[in-house]
Amino acid sequence: MRKNEWCFYVMERVRKLQEKMEEYGLDVFIAFKNHRYLAGSEAGKAVIVPCKGKPILICSRLEFDRVKRESWIKDVRAFSGWKSPLRSGESIFFGQPWELVINCLEELGAKVVGYDQAPPEFISKLRMLYRAGYKRLPKIVEEMRMMKDSKEIEIMKKAANLAILGMKRIHELLSPGVSELELAAEAEHVMRKSGGEGTPFPTIVASGENSWLPHAGATDRRIKKEDIVVVDLGCYFEGYASDMTRTFVLGHSRKFRKLVQIVREAQAEALKRVRGGIKASDVDLAAREFIRRKGLLRFYLHGTGHGVGLDIHEPPSLSPTSQEILQEGMVITVEPGVYVKGVGGARWEDMVIVKEEGFEKLTEVDLDG
Amino acid sequence: MRKNEWCFYVMERVRKLQEKMEEYGLDVFIAFKNHRYLAGSEAGKAVIVPCKGKPILICSRLEFDRVKRESWIKDVRAFSGWKSPLRSGESIFFGQPWELVINCLEELGAKVVGYDQAPPEFISKLRMLYRAGYKRLPKIVEEMRMMKDSKEIEIMKKAANLAILGMKRIHELLSPGVSELELAAEAEHVMRKSGGEGTPFPTIVASGENSWLPHAGATDRRIKKEDIVVVDLGCYFEGYASDMTRTFVLGHSRKFRKLVQIVREAQAEALKRVRGGIKASDVDLAAREFIRRKGLLRFYLHGTGHGVGLDIHEPPSLSPTSQEILQEGMVITVEPGVYVKGVGGARWEDMVIVKEEGFEKLTEVDLDG
Repeated sequence: MRKNEWCFYVMERVRKLQEKMEEYGLDVFIAFKNHRYLAGSEAGKAVIVPCKGKPILICSRLEFDRVKRESWIKDVRAFSGWKSPLRSGESIFFGQPWELVINCLEELGAKVVGYDQAPPEFISKLRMLYRAGYKRLPKIVEEMRMMKDSKEIEIMKKAANLAILGMKRIHELLSPGVSELELAAEAEHVMRKSGGEGTPFPTIVASGENSWLPHAGATDRRIKKEDIVVVDLGCYFEGYASDMTRTFVLGHSRKFRKLVQIVREAQAEALKRVRGGIKASDVDLAAREFIRRKGLLRFYLHGTGHGVGLDIHEPPSLSPTSQEILQEGMVITVEPGVYVKGVGGARWEDMVIVKEEGFEKLTEVDLDG
Repeated sequence: MRKNEWCFYVMERVRKLQEKMEEYGLDVFIAFKNHRYLAGSEAGKAVIVPCKGKPILICSRLEFDRVKRESWIKDVRAFSGWKSPLRSGESIFFGQPWELVINCLEELGAKVVGYDQAPPEFISKLRMLYRAGYKRLPKIVEEMRMMKDSKEIEIMKKAANLAILGMKRIHELLSPGVSELELAAEAEHVMRKSGGEGTPFPTIVASGENSWLPHAGATDRRIKKEDIVVVDLGCYFEGYASDMTRTFVLGHSRKFRKLVQIVREAQAEALKRVRGGIKASDVDLAAREFIRRKGLLRFYLHGTGHGVGLDIHEPPSLSPTSQEILQEGMVITVEPGVYVKGVGGARWEDMVIVKEEGFEKLTEVDLDG
């Protein structure tokens, strides 16, 4: 993460959070799960945000220099579980991280403390040792994270482009005899060489009898000349994930081509609905209805998509039970699939930005041309 | 995971857990965090173990076929958050996962329920909807996991061999002009091609001013001819992680060579103490004392090691505050490091199996020869 480029955007997040804190009547918010989102560095443990004024970043001693290099937050406080000599000018809190957090709460005079998601022991220690009202509020930052700012969109386009590179590489190499694992390795290699930071999930190259397992991984199975092959991959860039799926048919099987055509058309139906203001469940319904009309609904084993960002799966969820409304600036996947045990599976997935009047596809690639 | 090979070992874990459950007076134990350890497949959500009889595996509908293929557990029950037509012979619980878990608790007549670690909402739902005594017992399975069985050792040797391959590749390519990222990409590629399942943490190739950040990652910085370069990498194999670090000095800097010599000697001092029955903190102390005598203790920013297994960091911890006793069959890292800001950093890490009278190194490799 390049500090100067990001600084403005990340500061803005803290400002927005402070507005929300006022609504909720919080003196302090402690971000555990979402510390990276607010700090711009993954090396911290927690960010303590007062309702007014500057945030404090808590980290372990070994991450101090890294956090100072990466984060915009100036007030960084490090802990070490044991006493040890210090470098000249170094200031370290010797004790447990919750004790350091309690010091900060005391300093800020916090009476009402919100937090997102932390190990239960951590919160019980706080409750036991520092008297305040505590409110578990995991959704405040979660909701902010759903809407991506222009910097996040820029980064996520790069993450998506890396996924496209990986997909192209597999398309290039896909032929009878090559193993699923070899294909996954080559895709991951090209993504990593090109600046990727690793994969948000194990690359799926699911051929033959693996294709009907939605989360199959990649095995040493070798591709056969009449196979159907589901490839689902993604890449991290500056902490943000990408996600896309294509299904390839090697031979001339009409059955397999039909499966692929159905998931592509189901995706097109779903995408027609995507725009700001629509219910996420309506997008799911469009894909689901299409697959139902084709008589394959019993083989549609999952929801139609999910939000993507710092996490590979984050809100909103695009499923029949989703309560969320799509909004401009969300980045979501749209990925219907059908999995016919004993026959084959197919899935087609793109990552799109929700726009006021539709969407912009981040994972556009022409592999047939 | 190959089901038949593993079956015996994983069944044995459930048997041992049932023994412990009797000590704790539990009717049922629900493994959330440790479901994979008991099921032999990562695709589930939870394993419900009754004090007598066979366990039940809970999974989402989309993972059902995969779990049936991978796990030894016969009683697999799947949930779906929404109603949907079923495949012929398929049986799915339509509802929330905690409702399915409650059904199982009712069926088993559970009065005292232990669990390891779950999202707090999940546990509050159970407490609210099913009357029983609930005990949070994260350590029961954690303690079992510390001691590796012969199958786990076999697998972890393979994971370690993959890390060695990656390290050799970097050693081969390390020269002025190549970037940290390129080196990381090549190491990851050879590990993946050779059967690795991905990296348990982003490969660290930390050169020059990055070398004094213990967790630096890999950047586009190009190696210079007088650099010190810390390489810390690992690989998953059959779900188990490996972890090793080497520090390379490219030029003739005596300062850098001295740093490397110190961490190697500190490691040797620590390893001399490793055997069953010794306090984990004593191993840490040996490395720490050596570094102190060299006048560098203020640059030793972390503990001396940690357990490795399904998690890259798991108990025991080798630090000054550790309470654990090393036991035969544990797999741990021993990894002293010194990080001199403005000068350079060095770390030397091996993964070893604790033996009755010493240890066996899993990451032995001769890169100088």
